Amino acid sequence: MHRMTAHEATATEVAAMRRALELAARGPATGVNPRVGCVILSPAGDVLAEGWHRGAGTAHAEVDALSHLGAGQAHGATAVVTLEPCNHTGRTGPCAVALLEAGIGRVVYAVGDPGDHSAGGAQHLRAGGVDVVGGVLEAESEAFLDDWLFAARHHRPRVTVKWASTLDGRAAAADGTSQWITGEAARADMHRRRALADAIAVGTGTVVADDPALTARDAAGRLLDAQPVPVVFGSRPVPPDAAVLRHPRDAVLLAGHDLASDLRLLAERGIRSLFVEGGPTLASAFLAAGLADELLVYLAPALLGGPRTAIGDLGIATITQAQRYDFTDVTRLGDDLLVVARPVTPIEGT
Amino acid sequence: MHRMTAHEATATEVAAMRRALELAARGPATGVNPRVGCVILSPAGDVLAEGWHRGAGTAHAEVDALSHLGAGQAHGATAVVTLEPCNHTGRTGPCAVALLEAGIGRVVYAVGDPGDHSAGGAQHLRAGGVDVVGGVLEAESEAFLDDWLFAARHHRPRVTVKWASTLDGRAAAADGTSQWITGEAARADMHRRRALADAIAVGTGTVVADDPALTARDAAGRLLDAQPVPVVFGSRPVPPDAAVLRHPRDAVLLAGHDLASDLRLLAERGIRSLFVEGGPTLASAFLAAGLADELLVYLAPALLGGPRTAIGDLGIATITQAQRYDFTDVTRLGDDLLVVARPVTPIEGT
Repeated sequence: MHRMTAHEATATEVAAMRRALELAARGPATGVNPRVGCVILSPAGDVLAEGWHRGAGTAHAEVDALSHLGAGQAHGATAVVTLEPCNHTGRTGPCAVALLEAGIGRVVYAVGDPGDHSAGGAQHLRAGGVDVVGGVLEAESEAFLDDWLFAARHHRPRVTVKWASTLDGRAAAADGTSQWITGEAARADMHRRRALADAIAVGTGTVVADDPALTARDAAGRLLDAQPVPVVFGSRPVPPDAAVLRHPRDAVLLAGHDLASDLRLLAERGIRSLFVEGGPTLASAFLAAGLADELLVYLAPALLGGPRTAIGDLGIATITQAQRYDFTDVTRLGDDLLVVARPVTPIEGT
Repeated sequence: MHRMTAHEATATEVAAMRRALELAARGPATGVNPRVGCVILSPAGDVLAEGWHRGAGTAHAEVDALSHLGAGQAHGATAVVTLEPCNHTGRTGPCAVALLEAGIGRVVYAVGDPGDHSAGGAQHLRAGGVDVVGGVLEAESEAFLDDWLFAARHHRPRVTVKWASTLDGRAAAADGTSQWITGEAARADMHRRRALADAIAVGTGTVVADDPALTARDAAGRLLDAQPVPVVFGSRPVPPDAAVLRHPRDAVLLAGHDLASDLRLLAERGIRSLFVEGGPTLASAFLAAGLADELLVYLAPALLGGPRTAIGDLGIATITQAQRYDFTDVTRLGDDLLVVARPVTPIEGT
């Protein structure tokens, strides 16, 4: 027979956690803060209140839930929350303190808080006499918080490096012409994936040469609802009439001398995922720095030969230094092929 | 109701053609001559004799079948043969004449003879009063004679250009090291495909640098039964102790200045299919000359960057000159990917 211990959640609490995940999904998918949901249960297991976080500057999920209760109503109750209650005073006070002050008797959470400043909530609650159980529906909650957790743990966005090339690895012909190496289906797929990223990066060379709009568009050229923040890396000046400066989101300009530090800045601005669009210089710089968490390669059934490789030098001298990936997906897109690859030795937590 | 005309074959003749194809398959799959089978039917439709061609210098299928009949036995009979009877005196006399002399009254064949010197048999037979029907089971017979027909029509072997590269199109690291870019499954597949070709080509640069054996081997390194003829292209001398000179088949050395003319020589030696193994210089030369009927690209989930591209210059200046292919097959081989591609505008008859 299975005996429940103080460190396990009840079936009612697990069900409340599923509900808390549904509530969390109502929050905004982008920004510096995670999507969190909270359900407050009476000692008998009835739902007393629900809450979720609506984005930076607004109440955290626990505080939102507590706000629906009268004085003393939370006494001895259980808070079921998708992320460990924070122990940090930012624009709002620490949730651990709010839960203690409300007289919550038990806290059940899914994922530990990875924040440098905000972690320690569980410890603080336990020290205050609260019964705390973590790791309930942890895998589902980790998957739900995926990019946010990655950014919180690594202090940078998750990076996808995308390129389109011929089967022989060229991004353009000798004279620099490249439209269109890949076909419509590949371009539509690329726009769809752009729209899923928080930000999209190009080098200044590409801005000057191609003047890309960096918007996510449908086949008819209409803007998709979600638009990634345009990020321009490089030291060349961006022309004042550049299309990227007319993007619906404000462009972020970064020097690109220290990509790791630039990425930390982006993470601090709430950017959890970055789509590195090109050109070859920027893509190669991200690859050489070991900062690609995913490769997205659109291969056209064509050959060009010549000097304009999609990827330049990676500082690799000998074969044993080759960067090794796994092909995680290979898909036909019209006449083209989409190859998705991830590092064999991924960054911890990816 | 379907009425039979003089230009159509009877059901008995079609059945005999299927049998003739079976007989043809007993002949050798390599060499200058095609595999041909022949069935001789009595006017009542009974099988009088069967024959097939056993290789250059031996009797053609029709003559082999006739050889089983006594004097006058073929009079008024029907010869069902997979290839138009030849009209050419080579090492053996023309089959059209042999059939006429034997008193054959009707000839049913599948595929027209594409030979410059050997075609015209049907015309000669008709002029001699024989009833001739062509194109019976033509598609099956064309498929059966595939590489031989290609070589006969184009005066060169069918060319497969193979390379192995990283996802960014490199065949080696900056220092030239390349073992092993692709894994075991890819190498096994490559050996299997090598063994299917009549000949396998490398450049002298590769002979000097890598000293390849150019044999088709199994995973344990044992020689497979079928061994392609090793062909070395280039002007650099082949070292007297080169492994290729110890190949079970005699190596063919060609200058490589005029690939089309070199290929004609190979076709004249009975080589119907050529597997271009590399290195990059030779592969690029075949591609630049538009002489690749198939690409076989083994892509490793790795990046190398740097100068050593699998394919070099193809003389392509601008994007509209890109060589366009179709991906005809994409297969996972262990960790690697095999991409097979054929030209969008194939050489006629491929």
